[in-house]
Amino acid sequence: MGKLDIPKSNFGRWWNAVLLEADIVDVRTPTKGANVLMPNGYEIWEAIKANLNQRFKKTHHKNAYFPLFIPEEFLLLEEEHFEGFVPEVAWVTHVGDKKLNKKFALRPTSETIMYYMYALWIRSHKDLPLKINQWCNIIRWDTKETQALLRDREFQWSEAHTCHATAEEAVEQVEESMEIYSGVFDDLCLSYLQFKRPPHDTFPGAVYSIAYDAPLPEGKCLQIGTTHNLGQGFSRVFNINFQKEDGSTGAVYQTCYGMSTRVIAAIVAMHGDDKGLIIPPYVAPTQVVIVPILFRKKNEEEVTQACLEIEEQLTKANYRVYLDDRDRYTAGWKFNEHEMRGVPLRIEVGPKDIENNQCLFVRRDSGEKISIKREDLLAEVDNVLHDIDTEMRNRTKKLLEDSIHEAVTFEELVETYKKHKGFVKTNWCGDEDCAQQIKDKLSAEVRGVRVDIEKETLFGPCVVCEKEAKDVVYIGAAY
Amino acid sequence: MGKLDIPKSNFGRWWNAVLLEADIVDVRTPTKGANVLMPNGYEIWEAIKANLNQRFKKTHHKNAYFPLFIPEEFLLLEEEHFEGFVPEVAWVTHVGDKKLNKKFALRPTSETIMYYMYALWIRSHKDLPLKINQWCNIIRWDTKETQALLRDREFQWSEAHTCHATAEEAVEQVEESMEIYSGVFDDLCLSYLQFKRPPHDTFPGAVYSIAYDAPLPEGKCLQIGTTHNLGQGFSRVFNINFQKEDGSTGAVYQTCYGMSTRVIAAIVAMHGDDKGLIIPPYVAPTQVVIVPILFRKKNEEEVTQACLEIEEQLTKANYRVYLDDRDRYTAGWKFNEHEMRGVPLRIEVGPKDIENNQCLFVRRDSGEKISIKREDLLAEVDNVLHDIDTEMRNRTKKLLEDSIHEAVTFEELVETYKKHKGFVKTNWCGDEDCAQQIKDKLSAEVRGVRVDIEKETLFGPCVVCEKEAKDVVYIGAAY
Repeated sequence: MGKLDIPKSNFGRWWNAVLLEADIVDVRTPTKGANVLMPNGYEIWEAIKANLNQRFKKTHHKNAYFPLFIPEEFLLLEEEHFEGFVPEVAWVTHVGDKKLNKKFALRPTSETIMYYMYALWIRSHKDLPLKINQWCNIIRWDTKETQALLRDREFQWSEAHTCHATAEEAVEQVEESMEIYSGVFDDLCLSYLQFKRPPHDTFPGAVYSIAYDAPLPEGKCLQIGTTHNLGQGFSRVFNINFQKEDGSTGAVYQTCYGMSTRVIAAIVAMHGDDKGLIIPPYVAPTQVVIVPILFRKKNEEEVTQACLEIEEQLTKANYRVYLDDRDRYTAGWKFNEHEMRGVPLRIEVGPKDIENNQCLFVRRDSGEKISIKREDLLAEVDNVLHDIDTEMRNRTKKLLEDSIHEAVTFEELVETYKKHKGFVKTNWCGDEDCAQQIKDKLSAEVRGVRVDIEKETLFGPCVVCEKEAKDVVYIGAAY
Repeated sequence: MGKLDIPKSNFGRWWNAVLLEADIVDVRTPTKGANVLMPNGYEIWEAIKANLNQRFKKTHHKNAYFPLFIPEEFLLLEEEHFEGFVPEVAWVTHVGDKKLNKKFALRPTSETIMYYMYALWIRSHKDLPLKINQWCNIIRWDTKETQALLRDREFQWSEAHTCHATAEEAVEQVEESMEIYSGVFDDLCLSYLQFKRPPHDTFPGAVYSIAYDAPLPEGKCLQIGTTHNLGQGFSRVFNINFQKEDGSTGAVYQTCYGMSTRVIAAIVAMHGDDKGLIIPPYVAPTQVVIVPILFRKKNEEEVTQACLEIEEQLTKANYRVYLDDRDRYTAGWKFNEHEMRGVPLRIEVGPKDIENNQCLFVRRDSGEKISIKREDLLAEVDNVLHDIDTEMRNRTKKLLEDSIHEAVTFEELVETYKKHKGFVKTNWCGDEDCAQQIKDKLSAEVRGVRVDIEKETLFGPCVVCEKEAKDVVYIGAAY
């Protein structure tokens, strides 16, 4: 296990190093942008999946799996929807040495193939609401620069797609999805802003889009989830009609929402430090690692025995524990490895600890070392993990607060954004031209109006045209 | 919820009907052979995944995810391996409207892309054994007839790939994999034969292949899992070398093993009946469904209350329970639906039951109805589920036994196979020509030598050439 040798302040280089050393992603594939999600990264993804699946189950979502392939004609049927995706679509044109009569796109998202099936499944109001989620790989062959977990050509995601009898129920579903996503992100100790995107940045085919933006160390913001109210745009094209209770028929109202392995990126980027990852305790695949310290064979048997007892005690109390008793590595090597991988709490037991009937806690977040009496162990594990969780939340809350600045005039906006990056809060008239001028000047966009707090009070005219402003919005650059 | 109207004896038509009605697979996609795995099917798949993942965890396998795309040159590098796959390989040739400089295959299996990475990861004996599993979608674009779950162009699977320091450890790993797979299949109440495939039917690039064949109602056998001892064939091509403890270097020894959604096919085909599916109790997503019987509003409140209490009692005891209190369906409709979906046990509570302080158990496997005193409920659920499990195992054991016949002469083989299909046990010299003559005559193959029992005693000369036989083998037709 190597050390990083690159401080997090050098974010670009730290990123690739930490992903490889912490066993998250290996980009050295022969398929640029389609990377390996390595065992530690996959375990974190499985923890995120389990968390989301549990919430989906409680809210009566069902999982299913739809084809990877999208017929070419679907892209023409939904031209508006696919316009943005088309340059990135990968096409299957041949099988063996034979050319196919019609080519197939690899799914850049699954609205069309799913809604084609929904039209077969939905007949009556009794079939509604329909709430289906899919876990799958997604292909968006970005021809520009790729960046592991942030801009991948192949990535894993969850996409949920729902159908409802009324527009009101669709709005309620959007709200349910926001609660679900906030719950997941909260368990991951992430902090983020929740925006309603401006009309010109709404998902193609949607009525409106909600997105979750997390501030990353480079000063850019990462969209870690989105929810769309699709209205009847797709259901009219795909003929998803149903018979209402009164006997009349109509098209369903739809919503969809997704989150991807970008959430792992947010965990790595927001929580990580110069030593590697820090994984939030309540989702960490390994919450506690126990390392026996064997020194000149002193008390060797007692140390081993104590470690086994602690492992058993914590396992019984439902903690996810790993007793690292591998012979072939030194204790120091193990410390580095588990720090790199972000295990929240390390417990060391050495010969002296046996004599004093204690052990040593080492917190991953602060590096703090605490001697703990053996009889207090269980209560202290609970305390410390809880503390780490709180501390991690506080840190990302502060990161988020520190990433927000304000500007009233265009000059201030330019100056503030160039100086601080992150989010600049300002006033906007709602005109796309004004948004475009900001983009041209700063390569940053109007992220939208916040929906996680009450409507904010205007504090000036439009930052660009100086006409009356409509909304307080946040400017930031996206990955 | 429709009824099937097609008896299982009409297997071909029953198959498609039961898959759709039981919410397992919908084949009505615009992408022939790439179907929808529907919510009930997906839940069964998740149960299989959880079962296998748990066994993998205990045996120190790690999950990871590798790219969908395989560079063209890998197919040339491993020509022998890919020869069989090439006619079925789907090629990505374009992105957007641009032709790619080099085309990519969609993985028909992942040896090459995984082993390319393994060569980067393995340096020393300390890195061994390496045991990695991948859950992913697989593309094999069969241009012939497709059949849901049996012959799909896109399907889900698990593929594990291991590396070891010695040939002996690879053999042990093959054995570990066989134990793991048998454990999963056993929990699913499946019965099957375990074969070492003949050399001419060994996985391309492998030293030998072990396969698990289950007899299906049509008289064909379904390969539900395979394990391969790969020796050093791949590691030499991909340069997966390591430094040994003595300082010398060498290529690793490898194994791989996989099981796919074909296991769902085996569950449906082996356990299903004229009413639909029967899901083995220990893996069933819903083990017990509770249906309130409301009749002319009599005792309505008490019935509802009793159902809620039973739900709570069973949930607390860790059963997977569904209280079907949906207003919009009749009790009869619900009975059909849950029978179709194969829920092992139904508990009905009606007005009379309240008066007698009892409820009615209805077993899915036998249809048997049993009145149960409320105070005996928990113990009886345990008993009945256990009984259903035993009964389901006995049934498939009998199916398997009944599928095996014997033949000494070629004439007997032809007659017996044509009459009974399934497996015909006979003697074989080991010559591929003799196997080919059987195939030409019967469209059935030498499945191999059984490895789940002691080596069987020869009971005649080779069934084809009448020269001295080498092995007792089984003849059968594959899907």
